[in-house]
Amino acid sequence: MRHHRKVLIFHTEQREEVVNITCHVEDVIRKSGISEGIALVFPLHTSSAVFINDSDFGITRDWQSVLEKLVPVDGGYIHDRTDPKKNAYGHLRSVLSGHHICFPVTDGKPDFGTYHTVYYIEFDGQREKEIVIKVIGE
Amino acid sequence: MRHHRKVLIFHTEQREEVVNITCHVEDVIRKSGISEGIALVFPLHTSSAVFINDSDFGITRDWQSVLEKLVPVDGGYIHDRTDPKKNAYGHLRSVLSGHHICFPVTDGKPDFGTYHTVYYIEFDGQREKEIVIKVIGE
Amino acid sequence: MRHHRKVLIFHTEQREEVVNITCHVEDVIRKSGISEGIALVFPLHTSSAVFINDSDFGITRDWQSVLEKLVPVDGGYIHDRTDPKKNAYGHLRSVLSGHHICFPVTDGKPDFGTYHTVYYIEFDGQREKEIVIKVIGE
Repeated sequence: MRHHRKVLIFHTEQREEVVNITCHVEDVIRKSGISEGIALVFPLHTSSAVFINDSDFGITRDWQSVLEKLVPVDGGYIHDRTDPKKNAYGHLRSVLSGHHICFPVTDGKPDFGTYHTVYYIEFDGQREKEIVIKVIGE
Repeated sequence: MRHHRKVLIFHTEQREEVVNITCHVEDVIRKSGISEGIALVFPLHTSSAVFINDSDFGITRDWQSVLEKLVPVDGGYIHDRTDPKKNAYGHLRSVLSGHHICFPVTDGKPDFGTYHTVYYIEFDGQREKEIVIKVIGE
Repeated sequence: MRHHRKVLIFHTEQREEVVNITCHVEDVIRKSGISEGIALVFPLHTSSAVFINDSDFGITRDWQSVLEKLVPVDGGYIHDRTDPKKNAYGHLRSVLSGHHICFPVTDGKPDFGTYHTVYYIEFDGQREKEIVIKVIGE
Protein backbone atom coordinates (compact mmCIF):
# COMPACT_ATOMS: atom_id res chain seq x y z
CA MET A 1 0.00 0.00 0.00
CA ARG A 2 1.15 3.53 -0.75
CA HIS A 3 0.06 6.76 0.86
CA HIS A 4 0.45 10.41 0.03
CA ARG A 5 -0.43 13.58 1.93
CA LYS A 6 -0.50 17.18 0.78
CA VAL A 7 -1.67 20.31 2.59
CA LEU A 8 -3.32 23.07 0.56
CA ILE A 9 -3.18 26.51 2.14
CA PHE A 10 -5.75 29.22 1.47
CA HIS A 11 -6.20 32.77 2.67
CA THR A 12 -9.54 34.05 1.39
CA GLU A 13 -10.14 37.76 0.93
CA GLN A 14 -13.72 37.58 2.11
CA ARG A 15 -15.01 36.17 5.37
CA GLU A 16 -17.30 33.87 3.35
CA GLU A 17 -16.01 32.67 0.01
CA VAL A 18 -16.16 29.69 -2.33
CA VAL A 19 -13.02 28.47 -4.13
CA ASN A 20 -12.91 25.88 -6.93
CA ILE A 21 -10.08 23.56 -5.87
CA THR A 22 -10.59 20.85 -8.51
CA CYS A 23 -7.29 21.50 -10.31
CA HIS A 24 -5.37 21.33 -7.03
CA VAL A 25 -7.06 18.04 -6.15
CA GLU A 26 -6.30 16.58 -9.59
CA ASP A 27 -2.71 17.73 -9.31
CA VAL A 28 -2.21 16.08 -5.91
CA ILE A 29 -3.60 12.78 -7.20
CA ARG A 30 -1.33 12.92 -10.25
CA LYS A 31 1.75 13.63 -8.14
CA SER A 32 0.87 10.92 -5.60
CA GLY A 33 1.76 8.24 -8.13
CA ILE A 34 -1.20 6.21 -6.84
CA SER A 35 -3.28 4.55 -9.59
CA GLU A 36 -6.02 2.81 -7.63
CA GLY A 37 -7.28 3.88 -4.23
CA ILE A 38 -9.36 6.28 -2.19
CA ALA A 39 -8.69 9.96 -1.51
CA LEU A 40 -9.94 12.26 1.22
CA VAL A 41 -10.16 16.08 1.06
CA PHE A 42 -10.33 17.16 4.67
CA PRO A 43 -10.29 20.76 5.97
CA LEU A 44 -8.35 21.20 9.21
CA HIS A 45 -11.04 23.64 10.37
CA THR A 46 -14.65 23.40 11.45
CA SER A 47 -15.74 26.73 9.98
CA SER A 48 -15.13 25.65 6.42
CA ALA A 49 -16.10 22.67 4.28
CA VAL A 50 -15.32 20.85 1.06
CA PHE A 51 -18.14 19.68 -1.17
CA ILE A 52 -18.73 18.37 -4.67
CA ASN A 53 -21.08 20.06 -7.10
CA ASP A 54 -21.74 21.14 -10.66
CA SER A 55 -19.07 23.09 -12.52
CA ASP A 56 -21.32 26.17 -12.76
CA PHE A 57 -20.23 28.80 -10.26
CA GLY A 58 -23.83 30.09 -10.03
CA ILE A 59 -24.77 26.95 -8.12
CA THR A 60 -22.27 27.84 -5.41
CA ARG A 61 -23.99 31.19 -4.89
CA ASP A 62 -27.30 29.30 -4.73
CA TRP A 63 -25.81 27.04 -2.06
CA GLN A 64 -24.72 30.11 -0.09
CA SER A 65 -28.30 31.44 -0.32
CA VAL A 66 -29.71 28.13 0.92
CA LEU A 67 -27.28 28.22 3.85
CA GLU A 68 -28.21 31.82 4.65
CA LYS A 69 -31.87 30.78 4.78
CA LEU A 70 -31.33 27.61 6.84
CA VAL A 71 -28.55 28.88 9.14
CA PRO A 72 -28.61 32.69 9.26
CA VAL A 73 -25.41 34.52 10.27
CA ASP A 74 -27.08 35.97 13.33
CA GLY A 75 -29.22 33.17 14.74
CA GLY A 76 -28.84 33.90 18.44
CA TYR A 77 -26.41 30.99 18.79
CA ILE A 78 -25.09 29.90 22.20
CA HIS A 79 -21.56 29.59 20.76
CA ASP A 80 -21.54 33.30 19.89
CA ARG A 81 -22.04 34.32 23.53
CA THR A 82 -18.53 33.17 24.39
CA ASP A 83 -16.62 33.20 21.08
CA PRO A 84 -15.63 36.75 20.08
CA LYS A 85 -15.32 35.65 16.42
CA LYS A 86 -19.10 35.04 16.42
CA ASN A 87 -18.62 32.30 13.85
CA ALA A 88 -21.26 29.83 15.05
CA TYR A 89 -23.07 30.13 11.71
CA GLY A 90 -19.84 28.97 10.03
CA HIS A 91 -19.47 25.89 12.22
CA LEU A 92 -23.12 24.97 11.62
CA ARG A 93 -22.93 25.56 7.86
CA SER A 94 -19.83 23.36 7.77
CA VAL A 95 -21.84 20.39 9.06
CA LEU A 96 -24.68 21.09 6.61
CA SER A 97 -22.17 21.27 3.74
CA GLY A 98 -20.71 17.88 4.71
CA HIS A 99 -17.31 19.12 6.03
CA HIS A 100 -15.13 16.74 3.97
CA ILE A 101 -15.32 14.48 0.92
CA CYS A 102 -13.97 11.12 -0.22
CA PHE A 103 -13.61 10.02 -3.79
CA PRO A 104 -12.35 7.01 -5.73
CA VAL A 105 -8.99 7.16 -7.51
CA THR A 106 -8.93 5.12 -10.73
CA ASP A 107 -6.26 4.96 -13.43
CA GLY A 108 -4.26 7.59 -11.54
CA LYS A 109 -7.04 10.19 -11.64
CA PRO A 110 -10.03 11.26 -9.54
CA ASP A 111 -12.94 9.08 -10.65
CA PHE A 112 -15.25 12.02 -11.34
CA GLY A 113 -18.19 12.56 -13.66
CA THR A 114 -18.04 15.18 -16.42
CA TYR A 115 -19.25 18.07 -14.30
CA HIS A 116 -17.78 17.08 -10.92
CA THR A 117 -16.15 20.06 -9.29
CA VAL A 118 -14.58 20.22 -5.83
CA TYR A 119 -15.34 23.39 -3.88
CA TYR A 120 -13.81 24.72 -0.70
CA ILE A 121 -16.31 26.90 1.14
CA GLU A 122 -14.94 29.23 3.77
CA PHE A 123 -17.20 30.77 6.43
CA ASP A 124 -14.58 32.44 8.63
CA GLY A 125 -11.76 33.43 6.31
CA GLN A 126 -9.33 36.31 6.04
CA ARG A 127 -6.76 34.13 7.79
CA GLU A 128 -4.69 31.10 6.84
CA LYS A 129 -6.64 27.88 6.47
CA GLU A 130 -5.44 24.38 5.60
CA ILE A 131 -6.95 21.44 3.76
CA VAL A 132 -5.36 17.98 3.93
CA ILE A 133 -5.55 15.73 0.89
CA LYS A 134 -4.74 12.14 1.80
CA VAL A 135 -4.57 9.36 -0.77
CA ILE A 136 -4.06 5.69 -0.06
CA GLY A 137 -3.85 2.89 -2.60
CA GLU A 138 -1.29 1.40 -4.91
CA MET B 1 -3.73 -4.22 -1.15
CA ARG B 2 -6.55 -5.14 -3.48
CA HIS B 3 -9.01 -2.89 -5.22
CA HIS B 4 -12.27 -3.38 -7.04
CA ARG B 5 -14.48 -1.01 -9.06
CA LYS B 6 -17.97 -1.50 -10.39
CA VAL B 7 -20.30 0.97 -12.10
CA LEU B 8 -24.03 0.67 -11.47
CA ILE B 9 -26.24 2.19 -14.18
CA PHE B 10 -29.72 3.53 -13.51
CA HIS B 11 -32.38 5.12 -15.66
CA THR B 12 -35.20 6.31 -13.42
CA GLU B 13 -38.72 6.71 -14.78
CA GLN B 14 -39.41 9.83 -12.73
CA ARG B 15 -37.39 13.00 -12.62
CA GLU B 16 -37.13 12.58 -8.83
CA GLU B 17 -37.00 9.05 -7.51
CA VAL B 18 -35.49 7.00 -4.69
CA VAL B 19 -34.05 3.54 -5.36
CA ASN B 20 -32.98 1.00 -2.72
CA ILE B 21 -29.55 -0.15 -3.97
CA THR B 22 -28.53 -2.18 -0.91
CA CYS B 23 -28.59 -5.56 -2.69
CA HIS B 24 -26.40 -4.17 -5.50
CA VAL B 25 -23.92 -2.79 -2.98
CA GLU B 26 -23.80 -6.10 -1.09
CA ASP B 27 -23.33 -7.97 -4.35
CA VAL B 28 -20.39 -5.80 -5.42
CA ILE B 29 -18.66 -6.30 -2.07
CA ARG B 30 -19.16 -10.07 -2.29
CA LYS B 31 -17.77 -10.23 -5.82
CA SER B 32 -14.82 -7.98 -4.95
CA GLY B 33 -13.24 -10.79 -2.93
CA ILE B 34 -12.12 -8.19 -0.40
CA SER B 35 -12.61 -9.23 3.25
CA GLU B 36 -11.37 -6.21 5.18
CA GLY B 37 -11.37 -2.66 3.87
CA ILE B 38 -13.33 0.46 3.05
CA ALA B 39 -15.88 0.99 0.29
CA LEU B 40 -17.18 4.13 -1.36
CA VAL B 41 -20.52 4.54 -3.18
CA PHE B 42 -20.03 7.58 -5.36
CA PRO B 43 -22.51 8.95 -7.93
CA LEU B 44 -20.86 10.34 -11.07
CA HIS B 45 -23.43 13.15 -11.05
CA THR B 46 -24.12 16.20 -8.92
CA SER B 47 -27.90 16.07 -9.25
CA SER B 48 -28.21 12.78 -7.39
CA ALA B 49 -26.94 11.40 -4.11
CA VAL B 50 -26.42 8.20 -2.15
CA PHE B 51 -27.36 8.07 1.51
CA ILE B 52 -27.91 5.55 4.29
CA ASN B 53 -31.16 5.28 6.18
CA ASP B 54 -33.75 3.02 7.75
CA SER B 55 -35.15 0.12 5.72
CA ASP B 56 -38.66 1.64 5.75
CA PHE B 57 -39.43 3.20 2.40
CA GLY B 58 -41.75 5.73 4.11
CA ILE B 59 -38.72 7.47 5.53
CA THR B 60 -37.44 8.15 2.02
CA ARG B 61 -40.67 9.98 1.19
CA ASP B 62 -40.26 11.93 4.43
CA TRP B 63 -36.73 12.87 3.33
CA GLN B 64 -38.11 14.07 0.00
CA SER B 65 -40.64 16.22 1.89
CA VAL B 66 -37.89 17.71 4.06
CA LEU B 67 -35.88 18.52 0.94
CA GLU B 68 -38.92 20.09 -0.73
CA LYS B 69 -39.35 22.33 2.31
CA LEU B 70 -35.67 23.27 2.66
CA VAL B 71 -34.78 23.50 -1.04
CA PRO B 72 -37.94 24.03 -3.12
CA VAL B 73 -37.89 23.03 -6.80
CA ASP B 74 -38.48 26.61 -7.88
CA GLY B 75 -36.36 28.73 -5.56
CA GLY B 76 -35.34 31.49 -7.98
CA TYR B 77 -31.87 29.95 -8.27
CA ILE B 78 -29.09 31.69 -10.23
CA HIS B 79 -28.10 28.37 -11.84
CA ASP B 80 -31.55 28.06 -13.45
CA ARG B 81 -31.14 31.33 -15.38
CA THR B 82 -28.52 29.72 -17.61
CA ASP B 83 -29.17 25.97 -17.39
CA PRO B 84 -32.20 24.96 -19.50
CA LYS B 85 -32.65 21.79 -17.39
CA LYS B 86 -33.50 24.04 -14.42
CA ASN B 87 -32.07 21.45 -12.07
CA ALA B 88 -30.49 23.76 -9.46
CA TYR B 89 -32.75 22.27 -6.78
CA GLY B 90 -31.27 18.85 -7.61
CA HIS B 91 -27.68 20.02 -7.26
CA LEU B 92 -28.50 21.69 -3.93
CA ARG B 93 -30.43 18.69 -2.59
CA SER B 94 -27.49 16.48 -3.53
CA VAL B 95 -25.22 18.42 -1.14
CA LEU B 96 -27.84 18.33 1.62
CA SER B 97 -28.22 14.55 1.13
CA GLY B 98 -24.45 14.06 1.46
CA HIS B 99 -23.71 13.12 -2.20
CA HIS B 100 -21.74 9.93 -1.46
CA ILE B 101 -21.14 7.43 1.33
CA CYS B 102 -18.29 5.35 2.73
CA PHE B 103 -18.67 2.22 4.78
CA PRO B 104 -16.47 -0.40 6.44
CA VAL B 105 -16.08 -3.83 4.85
CA THR B 106 -15.64 -6.60 7.44
CA ASP B 107 -15.60 -10.38 6.93
CA GLY B 108 -16.31 -9.84 3.24
CA LYS B 109 -19.55 -7.93 3.83
CA PRO B 110 -20.70 -4.34 4.35
CA ASP B 111 -20.39 -3.65 8.07
CA PHE B 112 -23.98 -2.46 8.43
CA GLY B 113 -26.46 -2.42 11.30
CA THR B 114 -29.70 -4.40 11.12
CA TYR B 115 -31.72 -1.69 9.38
CA HIS B 116 -28.99 -0.05 7.29
CA THR B 117 -30.23 0.54 3.78
CA VAL B 118 -28.40 2.31 0.96
CA TYR B 119 -30.54 4.63 -1.14
CA TYR B 120 -29.81 6.31 -4.43
CA ILE B 121 -31.83 9.51 -4.73
CA GLU B 122 -32.21 10.98 -8.18
CA PHE B 123 -33.26 14.61 -8.72
CA ASP B 124 -32.80 14.90 -12.48
CA GLY B 125 -33.51 11.46 -13.88
CA GLN B 126 -35.14 10.06 -16.98
CA ARG B 127 -31.67 9.62 -18.44
CA GLU B 128 -28.75 7.27 -17.81
CA LYS B 129 -26.93 7.85 -14.56
CA GLU B 130 -23.90 6.07 -13.10
CA ILE B 131 -22.73 5.24 -9.58
CA VAL B 132 -19.18 4.04 -8.92
CA ILE B 133 -18.59 1.53 -6.14
CA LYS B 134 -14.92 1.37 -5.21
CA VAL B 135 -13.57 -1.05 -2.61
CA ILE B 136 -10.02 -1.19 -1.32
CA GLY B 137 -8.62 -3.59 1.23
CA GLU B 138 -7.34 -7.12 1.35
CA MET C 1 -2.03 -3.28 4.26
CA ARG C 2 -3.23 -3.47 7.83
CA HIS C 3 -6.74 -3.09 9.17
CA HIS C 4 -8.27 -2.57 12.58
CA ARG C 5 -11.87 -2.53 13.80
CA LYS C 6 -13.30 -1.47 17.13
CA VAL C 7 -16.91 -1.14 18.24
CA LEU C 8 -17.80 1.63 20.70
CA ILE C 9 -20.97 1.02 22.70
CA PHE C 10 -23.11 3.81 24.10
CA HIS C 11 -26.28 3.95 26.12
CA THR C 12 -27.43 7.56 26.38
CA GLU C 13 -29.60 8.68 29.28
CA GLN C 14 -31.64 11.06 27.13
CA ARG C 15 -33.52 10.25 23.97
CA GLU C 16 -31.55 13.00 22.20
CA GLU C 17 -28.01 13.56 23.36
CA VAL C 18 -24.59 14.63 22.08
CA VAL C 19 -21.43 12.85 23.25
CA ASN C 20 -17.85 13.97 22.62
CA ILE C 21 -16.12 10.79 21.42
CA THR C 22 -12.80 12.34 20.35
CA CYS C 23 -10.72 10.62 23.04
CA HIS C 24 -12.21 7.23 22.12
CA VAL C 25 -11.43 7.82 18.45
CA GLU C 26 -7.85 8.87 19.24
CA ASP C 27 -7.42 5.84 21.46
CA VAL C 28 -8.59 3.42 18.76
CA ILE C 29 -6.18 4.93 16.22
CA ARG C 30 -3.29 4.67 18.70
CA LYS C 31 -4.08 1.04 19.49
CA SER C 32 -4.51 0.14 15.83
CA GLY C 33 -0.77 0.46 15.27
CA ILE C 34 -1.51 2.04 11.89
CA SER C 35 0.65 5.08 11.06
CA GLU C 36 -0.64 6.14 7.67
CA GLY C 37 -4.13 5.50 6.37
CA ILE C 38 -7.80 6.39 6.45
CA ALA C 39 -10.30 5.85 9.26
CA LEU C 40 -14.08 5.69 9.27
CA VAL C 41 -16.39 6.35 12.24
CA PHE C 42 -19.63 4.68 11.31
CA PRO C 43 -22.74 4.33 13.52
CA LEU C 44 -24.55 1.01 13.11
CA HIS C 45 -27.85 2.90 13.39
CA THR C 46 -29.80 5.32 11.24
CA SER C 47 -31.21 7.37 14.09
CA SER C 48 -27.83 8.65 15.19
CA ALA C 49 -24.88 10.30 13.48
CA VAL C 50 -21.23 11.17 13.90
CA PHE C 51 -19.99 14.61 12.89
CA ILE C 52 -16.95 16.85 13.30
CA ASN C 53 -17.17 20.30 14.82
CA ASP C 54 -15.61 22.87 17.10
CA SER C 55 -14.50 21.83 20.60
CA ASP C 56 -17.06 24.17 22.22
CA PHE C 57 -20.00 22.18 23.51
CA GLY C 58 -22.30 25.22 22.96
CA ILE C 59 -22.05 24.65 19.23
CA THR C 60 -23.57 21.19 19.64
CA ARG C 61 -26.61 22.72 21.31
CA ASP C 62 -26.79 25.20 18.43
CA TRP C 63 -26.72 22.28 15.99
CA GLN C 64 -29.58 20.64 17.89
CA SER C 65 -31.55 23.91 17.61
CA VAL C 66 -30.90 24.08 13.86
CA LEU C 67 -32.10 20.48 13.52
CA GLU C 68 -35.22 21.22 15.57
CA LYS C 69 -36.02 24.10 13.22
CA LEU C 70 -35.31 22.21 9.98
CA VAL C 71 -36.66 18.79 11.01
CA PRO C 72 -39.11 19.16 13.91
CA VAL C 73 -39.76 16.14 16.15
CA ASP C 74 -43.40 16.05 15.15
CA GLY C 75 -43.46 16.78 11.43
CA GLY C 76 -46.36 14.54 10.39
CA TYR C 77 -43.90 12.03 8.93
CA ILE C 78 -45.13 8.97 7.00
CA HIS C 79 -42.64 6.76 8.86
CA ASP C 80 -44.30 7.59 12.19
CA ARG C 81 -47.65 6.17 11.05
CA THR C 82 -46.25 2.65 11.16
CA ASP C 83 -43.26 2.82 13.54
CA PRO C 84 -44.38 2.92 17.17
CA LYS C 85 -41.04 4.50 18.17
CA LYS C 86 -42.04 7.61 16.16
CA ASN C 87 -38.39 8.29 15.45
CA ALA C 88 -38.70 9.60 11.88
CA TYR C 89 -37.22 12.93 12.97
CA GLY C 90 -34.13 11.01 14.17
CA HIS C 91 -33.63 9.20 10.87
CA LEU C 92 -34.01 12.49 8.97
CA ARG C 93 -31.67 14.40 11.28
CA SER C 94 -29.11 11.62 10.87
CA VAL C 95 -28.93 12.31 7.11
CA LEU C 96 -28.70 16.07 7.68
CA SER C 97 -25.88 15.53 10.20
CA GLY C 98 -23.94 13.42 7.67
CA HIS C 99 -24.36 10.00 9.39
CA HIS C 100 -20.67 9.03 9.39
CA ILE C 101 -17.22 10.59 8.98
CA CYS C 102 -13.86 9.70 7.45
CA PHE C 103 -10.56 11.20 8.42
CA PRO C 104 -6.89 10.87 7.51
CA VAL C 105 -4.50 9.03 9.81
CA THR C 106 -0.98 10.49 9.76
CA ASP C 107 1.99 9.68 12.00
CA GLY C 108 -0.21 7.27 13.97
CA LYS C 109 -2.77 9.93 14.92
CA PRO C 110 -5.99 11.42 13.57
CA ASP C 111 -4.95 14.22 11.21
CA PHE C 112 -7.12 16.84 12.90
CA GLY C 113 -6.93 20.59 13.25
CA THR C 114 -6.53 22.22 16.66
CA TYR C 115 -10.24 22.40 17.43
CA HIS C 116 -11.44 19.25 15.66
CA THR C 117 -13.81 17.34 17.86
CA VAL C 118 -15.76 14.19 16.97
CA TYR C 119 -19.34 14.11 18.22
CA TYR C 120 -21.81 11.27 18.36
CA ILE C 121 -25.35 12.61 18.20
CA GLU C 122 -28.12 10.30 19.32
CA PHE C 123 -31.75 10.92 18.36
CA ASP C 124 -33.34 7.72 19.67
CA GLY C 125 -31.29 6.71 22.67
CA GLN C 126 -31.98 5.12 26.02
CA ARG C 127 -30.91 1.81 24.52
CA GLU C 128 -27.61 0.26 23.46
CA LYS C 129 -26.11 1.75 20.33
CA GLU C 130 -22.91 0.84 18.48
CA ILE C 131 -20.38 2.78 16.45
CA VAL C 132 -17.79 1.00 14.31
CA ILE C 133 -14.35 2.55 13.91
CA LYS C 134 -12.48 1.01 10.99
CA VAL C 135 -8.93 1.94 10.11
CA ILE C 136 -6.98 0.75 7.11
CA GLY C 137 -3.41 1.65 6.22
CA GLU C 138 0.07 0.57 7.16
